[in-house]
Amino acid sequence: MMKKILLLPDSFKGTLTSRQVCQIMEEAIHRELPCCQVVSLPVADGGEGSVDCFLTALAGERRHCTVQGPLGEPIEGVYALLEGGHTAVIEMAAAAGLPLVGDRKNPLLTSTYGVGQLIADGVAQGAHKLIVGLGGSATNDGAAGAMAALGARFYRESAEEFIPTGGTLEEIARIDASGLLPQLQECEMIAMCDIDNPMYGPTGAAYIFGPQKGATPPMVEQLDRGLRHYAAQLEKWLGCTVADLPGAGAAGAMGAGLVAFLHARLTPGIEAVLDAVHFEEQATGADLIFTGEGLLDHQSLRGKVVIGVGRRAKALGIPVVAVVGGCADDLGDLRDRGVQASFGIARRPQPLEEALGRAEKNLQATMGEIVKLLALSSQGRV
Amino acid sequence: MMKKILLLPDSFKGTLTSRQVCQIMEEAIHRELPCCQVVSLPVADGGEGSVDCFLTALAGERRHCTVQGPLGEPIEGVYALLEGGHTAVIEMAAAAGLPLVGDRKNPLLTSTYGVGQLIADGVAQGAHKLIVGLGGSATNDGAAGAMAALGARFYRESAEEFIPTGGTLEEIARIDASGLLPQLQECEMIAMCDIDNPMYGPTGAAYIFGPQKGATPPMVEQLDRGLRHYAAQLEKWLGCTVADLPGAGAAGAMGAGLVAFLHARLTPGIEAVLDAVHFEEQATGADLIFTGEGLLDHQSLRGKVVIGVGRRAKALGIPVVAVVGGCADDLGDLRDRGVQASFGIARRPQPLEEALGRAEKNLQATMGEIVKLLALSSQGRV
Repeated sequence: MMKKILLLPDSFKGTLTSRQVCQIMEEAIHRELPCCQVVSLPVADGGEGSVDCFLTALAGERRHCTVQGPLGEPIEGVYALLEGGHTAVIEMAAAAGLPLVGDRKNPLLTSTYGVGQLIADGVAQGAHKLIVGLGGSATNDGAAGAMAALGARFYRESAEEFIPTGGTLEEIARIDASGLLPQLQECEMIAMCDIDNPMYGPTGAAYIFGPQKGATPPMVEQLDRGLRHYAAQLEKWLGCTVADLPGAGAAGAMGAGLVAFLHARLTPGIEAVLDAVHFEEQATGADLIFTGEGLLDHQSLRGKVVIGVGRRAKALGIPVVAVVGGCADDLGDLRDRGVQASFGIARRPQPLEEALGRAEKNLQATMGEIVKLLALSSQGRV
Repeated sequence: MMKKILLLPDSFKGTLTSRQVCQIMEEAIHRELPCCQVVSLPVADGGEGSVDCFLTALAGERRHCTVQGPLGEPIEGVYALLEGGHTAVIEMAAAAGLPLVGDRKNPLLTSTYGVGQLIADGVAQGAHKLIVGLGGSATNDGAAGAMAALGARFYRESAEEFIPTGGTLEEIARIDASGLLPQLQECEMIAMCDIDNPMYGPTGAAYIFGPQKGATPPMVEQLDRGLRHYAAQLEKWLGCTVADLPGAGAAGAMGAGLVAFLHARLTPGIEAVLDAVHFEEQATGADLIFTGEGLLDHQSLRGKVVIGVGRRAKALGIPVVAVVGGCADDLGDLRDRGVQASFGIARRPQPLEEALGRAEKNLQATMGEIVKLLALSSQGRV
C-alpha cells in the first residue's frame, strides 16, 4: 500500500506554475489513492528567474535596493531573502543582465559592480547563506566589479587603484582581497551554474558567450587575453587556480571570481534548489516522487528539474515518475538517471498552440490515468 | 508477480495494423516484464471491413464468387471462410454496398439479392455459422432480395411472384418461406450491427439512412410506408414481430429480414469478433488486458474495440488498459465500462499529420513507459 508521495514539479513554462502543477497532481492522487500522504514542493531549476524560483519553493521576501547597473547607471535591483533572512538569493542578471544594456552591449565596458552591491546588502541584512544565480549577464569582468563593491582592490602597474572591466582585466598588476567585507568569511556562498565552460580558451567565456554580449571577433580576442591574464593574477595574489574549473567561465567568468575570492561552490541550479528545500529530509519515507516540466529534452539532461530530481531520488532508492508537457525522442533510458517512467500529457495529436491552451485539462487527465494505473497495482490487481 | 497479459487491440486506422500494434506491445512487455506470458489477439470492431477483420483475428481464406450487384448487374463478391469452412463471414456491402451503385443511388430499386447468393455459397461450402456484417448498404429492401436468393417467395395480390425492392415492399401480399435452403435450419446466424434504429418511423431505416442512399423526401416516405407494410407481412406470414427490435432498421432493414427469416441474432460487431476469437477462453487466467484503437471518442462508447473489450473483461474481473492514438475529452470515467486507465500515445504536442507519421515510434515509447510503471509496481516498489 502506498503511503507517501512527494511532488516536485517545475512549472510548465508559459502555461502552469509549479504550484498549479502540484495542485493538479495532488487532486488526482487524493481522488484515487485517498490514504496517501502527499507532500507538495513546487520548484524550479534555478536558471533564469532564480529569485522567483526560490520564492516559489520557500517562504521569503523580495528586497529592492538601488545599485549600479552594468554601465554604471543607477538601477533598482531586487533579490530574495529566505528563511527569515538567513539566505539571500541573488540573480546576477538583476544588476548585470543583458536586458539592462539594451543596444549598448559592450562586454569590454560592462561591470558586475551592482551584483557585489546586492551581495553586500544581503550580508548587511544578516544573510549567512548566499546563493548567486549565474547566467544572462552582459559582462565579462570575472566578477572583478562585484569584488570591488565588496572591498577587494585592484591595482595597475602604476599602483593606481581601479575597477577592472572586461576590457581592462589585462591591466591588473596586483590584487588585494584583504578589504573584503569580513562577514563574508562566515557566509556559505553558492554559485548556481548550469554550464561547464572553463575560464578562457576556445570553450571559455569570451569565445563562447562574448559574441552574444556584443563582442566583435577582435573584442573576443581581447576579452580572452584579459581572462587569461586575470587567471594568472588570481593565482598569484589569491593562491587560487580556477581557470579550468568546470563553470569558471560562466557569466563572463563570474564563476571564477566567486570561487577565487569568496570560495563559492559552483553547483547546478536544481541542486541548489533541492538543497534549499531540504530534499533528502522531505523525501524520507517517500514511496514515489512525481516530477515534471514543460519540455523534457536533451537540454533537460544537463540539469533541469526532472533529471535533477531523478539523480537525487536515485541515491535514495525512491522511484520517480515524470509527467511532462512534451517529451523529446531518443533521450535514452531515463532509468539510468533515476526517472522510472515519463508521460507526455497530450491526450491526442494537437498542435503546440492548442496544447498550450489545454495544459491544465491535459495534465488533469493524464495524471488521473497514471494514478488509476497505480491504484490498480496498489490493490494488487495487476 | 504478473503472469499473463492479453493483447486485444484494434488497428490504429491509417497507421498501424492491429497485428503491428500487438507486436509493439509485446516487445515492450517482454523487455520490462520478461517472465510474463503474452497472448496476442489482433482484432477489429466488425464494422466496415468485417471480412478483413475476422481474417486478422482468425485463420481463414477469402472466397470469391460472381453474384448480382445491387442493381442486378453481375459483380465479383468476396467473403471469408474461417475455421476450416465452419464459419462464413459476409459483408453485405460486398454485394449491396453504396460504392457499387456509384451515382445511380436509388433505394427504391436496389436489392440485397447478391448478399443472399453469398450466404448460399457459404452454406454450400459447408458453413454452419454465418456472420453477416450489416452496414454501408445501398438498399432498403428489408433483406427481401437476399431471402429470395435463398428460396423465400414473395407474391403480389395478383398471386404473381416477384422479388421486392425498397419501392415495391408495399406490394407484398403473401410471403412463403418454406422454400428457404434447408441447410439454413442448421446454421447459427449472426448479424453484426452497431446501431439501434427500429425498422420504420422517424428513427427508422428510411428516415435516418434513406437520404444518404439517394432518397428524396417523397422517396423516404414511400420507403417508410413500404417497411411498415413489410413488417405487418412478416408478422402475418412468419409470425415474427421485429419492427421495434433495436437494430431492425440497420442496413435498409436487413436486420429485420435476417431476424424474421433466419432467426439471426443481432449483435454489435465487436461482440461477434470477441465471440469468434473465444475471448473468455483466451482471457482465462489473464491478469491484465491491453487494448487500443486509433481514436477513443464518443463513437467508441457505442461498441468499438476498446469499450467492447472493457465490457467483456469487466464481467471477468480483469483490468483493461487502453493505449490509443488519441483520446477525446469528457468520456467520463471509463472504469464504469471496464477500462481502468487509458493513455494517448502522443509524447508531445504535434499536429495530427505529424502524429500519424510517428504512430509506431509514439506507441513504442508510450507502451514502454506504461510497462515500466507496471514493472515498478510488480517489483513492489510503488
